[in-house]
Amino acid sequence: MNAPATTAHLQPLTTPRPVPQAMLDALAARFGAQYSAAQAVCEQHGRDEGSLQAPPPAAVVFAESTQDVQDAVRLAAQYGVPVIPYGAGSSLEGHLLAVQGGISIDMGRMNRVLSVDADDLTVTVQPGITRKQLNEAIKDTGLFFPIDPGADASIGGMAATRASGTNAVRYGTMRENVLALEVVTARGEVIRTGTRAKKSSAGYDLTRLMVGSEGTLGLFTEVTVRLYPLPEAVSAAICSFPTIEAAVRTVIQTIQLGVPIARVELIDANSVRMVNAHSKLRLREEPLLLMEFHGSPAGVQEQAEVVQDIAREWDGNAFEWATTPEERTRLWTARHNAYFAAVQSRPGCKAISTDTCVPISRLADCLLDSVAEADASGIPYFLVGHVGDGNFHFGYLLDPAVPAERETAERLNHQLVARALRLGGTCTGEHGVGVHKMGFLVDEAGEGAVEMMRAIKRALDPQNILNPGKIFAL
Amino acid sequence: MNAPATTAHLQPLTTPRPVPQAMLDALAARFGAQYSAAQAVCEQHGRDEGSLQAPPPAAVVFAESTQDVQDAVRLAAQYGVPVIPYGAGSSLEGHLLAVQGGISIDMGRMNRVLSVDADDLTVTVQPGITRKQLNEAIKDTGLFFPIDPGADASIGGMAATRASGTNAVRYGTMRENVLALEVVTARGEVIRTGTRAKKSSAGYDLTRLMVGSEGTLGLFTEVTVRLYPLPEAVSAAICSFPTIEAAVRTVIQTIQLGVPIARVELIDANSVRMVNAHSKLRLREEPLLLMEFHGSPAGVQEQAEVVQDIAREWDGNAFEWATTPEERTRLWTARHNAYFAAVQSRPGCKAISTDTCVPISRLADCLLDSVAEADASGIPYFLVGHVGDGNFHFGYLLDPAVPAERETAERLNHQLVARALRLGGTCTGEHGVGVHKMGFLVDEAGEGAVEMMRAIKRALDPQNILNPGKIFAL
Repeated sequence: MNAPATTAHLQPLTTPRPVPQAMLDALAARFGAQYSAAQAVCEQHGRDEGSLQAPPPAAVVFAESTQDVQDAVRLAAQYGVPVIPYGAGSSLEGHLLAVQGGISIDMGRMNRVLSVDADDLTVTVQPGITRKQLNEAIKDTGLFFPIDPGADASIGGMAATRASGTNAVRYGTMRENVLALEVVTARGEVIRTGTRAKKSSAGYDLTRLMVGSEGTLGLFTEVTVRLYPLPEAVSAAICSFPTIEAAVRTVIQTIQLGVPIARVELIDANSVRMVNAHSKLRLREEPLLLMEFHGSPAGVQEQAEVVQDIAREWDGNAFEWATTPEERTRLWTARHNAYFAAVQSRPGCKAISTDTCVPISRLADCLLDSVAEADASGIPYFLVGHVGDGNFHFGYLLDPAVPAERETAERLNHQLVARALRLGGTCTGEHGVGVHKMGFLVDEAGEGAVEMMRAIKRALDPQNILNPGKIFAL
Repeated sequence: MNAPATTAHLQPLTTPRPVPQAMLDALAARFGAQYSAAQAVCEQHGRDEGSLQAPPPAAVVFAESTQDVQDAVRLAAQYGVPVIPYGAGSSLEGHLLAVQGGISIDMGRMNRVLSVDADDLTVTVQPGITRKQLNEAIKDTGLFFPIDPGADASIGGMAATRASGTNAVRYGTMRENVLALEVVTARGEVIRTGTRAKKSSAGYDLTRLMVGSEGTLGLFTEVTVRLYPLPEAVSAAICSFPTIEAAVRTVIQTIQLGVPIARVELIDANSVRMVNAHSKLRLREEPLLLMEFHGSPAGVQEQAEVVQDIAREWDGNAFEWATTPEERTRLWTARHNAYFAAVQSRPGCKAISTDTCVPISRLADCLLDSVAEADASGIPYFLVGHVGDGNFHFGYLLDPAVPAERETAERLNHQLVARALRLGGTCTGEHGVGVHKMGFLVDEAGEGAVEMMRAIKRALDPQNILNPGKIFAL
């Protein structure tokens, strides 16, 4: 949902390399009906859910096997042409843009579950399966895959961007939940990283290096992830607070006490108004915490009581329960619809979303100063967040026809990132760097660390054909 | 504790590069009393707790600051001489051997706590602090650092080998618990990886790449790790079983039910006999599970009841409780002393320890077949394990004067590793590769993945001066 003030800074990156006709002919011959150079297909594969734009890729290959991916990458290597893996198209930072031209490899047909190892709490899947498809496929095992970035993203794409979402406070992110990968390298070779063992000290942690590499170091063709037993008991609650600060302080204390809360989402009063209008709800139009507790019946009750006590100290009102699955679904659907509700609240607007994450003790400082800045700017906005992790998203709602609004939104985002970095945080908790946050990455990691990333990239992809122009400029 | 059948396979690695006198003079001039080339000092820094041997380093620098480390590495880079970081000297696979000569950098004096951020459940330390020193320093915060590899290892060394131990089943390994690092690179530059934010998608996960890199990609000068609230209630229990299989099945079911058990250690009847003799205990000389439960008083009780029910199904006897801190300490001290108890049980013997880890569903198969092989071999052995993670250690007790025993022990280890790999596991759960397991790493990861590790190594350390000759041959 991020977008730059202008696309001017993209110009140096937008240097499409020509795709020789001979390569397109070779792809067409090899892939037949799995190949398309139709304009509509290419355009669809050349954008994501963000608002950055670039010319589309020259062609799309619909991979159906690891061998397909290998063959496509080998042709790309032969001709020195970029390849961009495409999952569900739900990334936000320009990850899918063909800023240096090339071809897209659509993984959507590689969506099979290869092996459910229920006894080990693991599953191995092809990368194109979406998280909802995965949970549907394993629903009879009593297990679930908890990572929930909102969008019905593909597992391969989630691994590539190190995604997380509402359950991460309890279950971790893709960093913690990917155990092993099959990867096609820049030379079209297949390697395996990790094993199904829960831990290992066997050499460099290539799995963790690949997770979050945004398609720049290899294309994932198999992903082994952890599963969890469906909790015996689940309860959800809504609690409203007089101020954002009171809500945030409640969260901070909850985390510091070590309560194993499964979800704790903040939505500000703006968001509540938008969600009420969009989803025909009657939530109190005050800052809310949406919470979920997983465990045994007694454990869930114990956790909820602790949090209720904390909330009371911060003048939290009306700890309302949603204990049936239907009520809970309604609640979380409302949360997931916050973005769409917000966009609908200002017809024709575009939303620019931020993604900072800070140490929990700095959350109130970071949030409150940024709320004050957003209020002072006059631009409509909403605020939602996985606040148990210190991660939150402002959405600035701007009129794309008014350049000043875009500039204001970008300025607010810059100020927020600078503040988060000062407070020991990160510019991106879960969306990734893509094209949009390259400058922020240097601010955060420092030139030396980014140069180390570049050295790794050059070593593993000397021709710079794997999703080039993302994360850093070479 | 691993040792090869012979050191013959070390020969190609043992190619000391000369350390020019000019460099030693420069080190002496720069470091004064922080420098030593005394034979005893060098010899002490040229070995670890394993039984591999190599000529000692030419000199030792006792670093007291990041600047010291930088300056030593810069001199090493200037002269193309290897540098080997030294923490507590407790590694097991030959990590500290100067197989290609060079100098040792002792981090022991860099043992300060730099920043306790209790509200964020993090602490930043220098790498030379040991885990016990760390826990002592933070004991008034109500927090603790759970990773417990047995030895009082340094935090930097634990990060470098991706260590874990008895608490990993609940709290994870160094992989999950290192948030950020300060690293001195092969050029003597300082970079920072990660932030104190709980999660991030900001570029390549350099932190996880460094964790487990065994000193071959950079020297850690600061380490930020997670802390955890001391549990409100802790209880420990011992339960004996008629067979190893019954004990293991109890563990498997416990894990599959999602019980958040904090520790679950297997010790076989051999170990119990040795521990009883060594620690003057009267534990039942049957396979035992040592367990610990962390949580609220009600939560702890609930967990224990679930496990007790499972144990009963597998004919577990005498679920004995250790609820006072003194009783618990006695129990865990006995566990940690198993190795010493075993070595004392056969005067003059050497122990060769294995470190495989398999998916939990394969644990019984892997263990029982290996027990049968060990029994058939006639060599005295003991078996302990962090079985909740699928990780266990056989210790073969051999007479170093009898080459046939060493060969038998190595054969058993090879058979065990091959079996673990067939079952989807790893050759090393927590000890690392070092010098000893290079061959196993290729068997496990495949030549392609190891070649990717080599490519990263060459890119980040083109002179091959950072702990060369470890993990893989270049």
